[in-house]
Amino acid sequence: MAELIGNLLVAQSGGPTAVINASVAGVVQLARKYPSIQKIYGGLNGILGILSEQLIDLNQELPDTIQALKFTPGAALGTCRYKIDFKRKPDRAAREMDRLFQVFQAHNIRFFFYAGGNDSQDTADKIHLEALRRGFEMRVIGVPKTIDNDLPHTDHCPGFGSVAKYNACTVMEIAADAGSMATDDGSCCVIEVMGRSAGWIAASTVLAKHGPQDAPHIILLPEIPFQEEPFLDKVKAVVAEVGYCIVVVGEGLKKLDGTEYSADKTRLDAFGHPALSGASERLGELVFGKLRTKTRTVKLGYAQRCAAHYASATDAAEAIACGEAAVRAAADGKSGFMVKIIRTPGEDYCWTTGLQPLGDIANVEHLVPRDWISEDGFMPNEKFIQYARPLIEGEVRVPTEGGLPKFAVLQRHSVAQKLPRRK
Amino acid sequence: MAELIGNLLVAQSGGPTAVINASVAGVVQLARKYPSIQKIYGGLNGILGILSEQLIDLNQELPDTIQALKFTPGAALGTCRYKIDFKRKPDRAAREMDRLFQVFQAHNIRFFFYAGGNDSQDTADKIHLEALRRGFEMRVIGVPKTIDNDLPHTDHCPGFGSVAKYNACTVMEIAADAGSMATDDGSCCVIEVMGRSAGWIAASTVLAKHGPQDAPHIILLPEIPFQEEPFLDKVKAVVAEVGYCIVVVGEGLKKLDGTEYSADKTRLDAFGHPALSGASERLGELVFGKLRTKTRTVKLGYAQRCAAHYASATDAAEAIACGEAAVRAAADGKSGFMVKIIRTPGEDYCWTTGLQPLGDIANVEHLVPRDWISEDGFMPNEKFIQYARPLIEGEVRVPTEGGLPKFAVLQRHSVAQKLPRRK
Repeated sequence: MAELIGNLLVAQSGGPTAVINASVAGVVQLARKYPSIQKIYGGLNGILGILSEQLIDLNQELPDTIQALKFTPGAALGTCRYKIDFKRKPDRAAREMDRLFQVFQAHNIRFFFYAGGNDSQDTADKIHLEALRRGFEMRVIGVPKTIDNDLPHTDHCPGFGSVAKYNACTVMEIAADAGSMATDDGSCCVIEVMGRSAGWIAASTVLAKHGPQDAPHIILLPEIPFQEEPFLDKVKAVVAEVGYCIVVVGEGLKKLDGTEYSADKTRLDAFGHPALSGASERLGELVFGKLRTKTRTVKLGYAQRCAAHYASATDAAEAIACGEAAVRAAADGKSGFMVKIIRTPGEDYCWTTGLQPLGDIANVEHLVPRDWISEDGFMPNEKFIQYARPLIEGEVRVPTEGGLPKFAVLQRHSVAQKLPRRK
Repeated sequence: MAELIGNLLVAQSGGPTAVINASVAGVVQLARKYPSIQKIYGGLNGILGILSEQLIDLNQELPDTIQALKFTPGAALGTCRYKIDFKRKPDRAAREMDRLFQVFQAHNIRFFFYAGGNDSQDTADKIHLEALRRGFEMRVIGVPKTIDNDLPHTDHCPGFGSVAKYNACTVMEIAADAGSMATDDGSCCVIEVMGRSAGWIAASTVLAKHGPQDAPHIILLPEIPFQEEPFLDKVKAVVAEVGYCIVVVGEGLKKLDGTEYSADKTRLDAFGHPALSGASERLGELVFGKLRTKTRTVKLGYAQRCAAHYASATDAAEAIACGEAAVRAAADGKSGFMVKIIRTPGEDYCWTTGLQPLGDIANVEHLVPRDWISEDGFMPNEKFIQYARPLIEGEVRVPTEGGLPKFAVLQRHSVAQKLPRRK
């Protein structure tokens, strides 16, 4: 096999994580060492920016800036949720694919890395197959990224460890606060975390629990259909025993009929749309309404997936390694794979990276196994804890200025466009 | 004046902060050096626990535990919102005051420190005056504590700097996240923070803003009556210019008629009570309903006031110093004062502690001055920034274990009760 020589393009897709930029740093820093990789480009806003030929030259960024990407939240290259939709809009999708390959060709892109979740790996797979079909020699490697931890075949996803660490820390702190307020009738605090289908994020807050009376006391997972009565009984029992009850709920909590608990169409806002308020608000209303227990709610929302100031050092190291592994695989002649994390057997936590065909990833959702959850459905068990505990180890030290984090800001040197504007 | 010899009692009251325990550590560590201070007791759950003679012996705690209080959130002694209500229940209040002094007498309490906000300083004042009336020699000193920063006469309150730091960091991180998502119609994220009457907490997120296009783009303070139209115009303009808009709202945002914006009595929950959902949810509905801009909400709730993992080192140092100043004042023969923080003039931030009569504190609420806020009411100005910036400087290093903070846990050695049980 003749060595492939050309330019590299890396882009980010889907919701950001605290460490998605660490993967880009891994790609850029390692790619600089390969003579066969000439220019190192970033595509702005994922596939969307590539379609409009919006590329930036990452080689012109200062090495310190690339290094600082390792602790910078958000997607430094910009991101999108855009999908090339062959199913519902085949003509448009074909035109878009054409355009993508015009861009690849015009800029001699021979190494393409796409960091993202399920949909993004699907896009990467389609690009890989199209390259084969066209006989355009290009190595396409997917870099896993998702706080939701719902990708199959990888032990876990970069991004998950950091949200798990931040949320578990937050639960510990809220418990210290709520637990210190003396109230006659006890209190309940409902903390809503992300996770629409998979409950990995909610489940990981179990790591805050060091003793049987510690918070969280109840964890509601989207995997376990919600039933009011056993839930209220449990809240009542916890309040009676501990004095307060911390409930963590995954935003995608479902009812027995499979519909989302928070999507209450009977409650409309002032404009006649279904009220936005989420699972925590509804549960808060339920607890206060039925038990008259003083209830407070917390909705961490975006705050949890970008909390770089308390990111997991293990997670950051793995995100960097996934970026590096993508470069090594592509330089090694591989294409059509996603980097995965493999946990090596043994008592101590050890991991390495591997490769999984992209075609195995798309449209498969990895949920929390039922036998990792207690019988009553309210708490992940020891199997889950052993799995999740190592992923939150270590703290990333973020430099500060004026008491606040000093994140990387890319200069974004534009690459001269070579194509007519996209219609 | 003959030297007063006896025991010390310290208690905590009101909502916890990230550094309320740092003040207790300051009291205990310095008090140990005074021979005239014999036992060092903690009262559990503020005035409530003292009424039930629930005291613990803080001298039996390990020095390392007391040291670790400096980075432990929540109220380690427990807290309460209980008020001795002379106005509405004078007979009961008189009985309670009797009981308090029985406890003080039984345990030879000669130094009493109460850490709390407005109401707690009022309670401390009543106890001080009652001691004078009874001729019971006891030094009563209030230690300021409130995230809300609404106490008068002190430059600022311990607790405020840490919530300001955590919230400003969170706004920076959310902005990095939200700003990196490419959307055709822009996006809006509404972040709800604490502050029912005073907008100090909301205002302090301006510290996240380093350039004119940086978040937060709009800050809604309880001090400035909310009007939908100029707000929506501003959101629209920001989205058009920057692509996304980060709104920070103080939970106590008021309408022109003075009622709370979030207390919408026209919207009832499933049980017929006014819906709990707060200002962020209502603003989110408003923005999406009127502008059709994709909107997300974050409600930090308790998470912000207990975020010890990102506390301000300046705040923690001042909280410790306030505890120490209370001990020095009492040992020096003073009673009936609250410790205050005095900012010394000059370009660099310098501070010292002082004393203010407790009677000056109660029922006075310190709001953000109108001339510290921009004309349109949407942003604190340079005066505010100069005031707030130094308060978030420095990071408290919290030790971790298994990737999570290792907070102090008091052993809580009970002091033997000497009185008949309270009826």
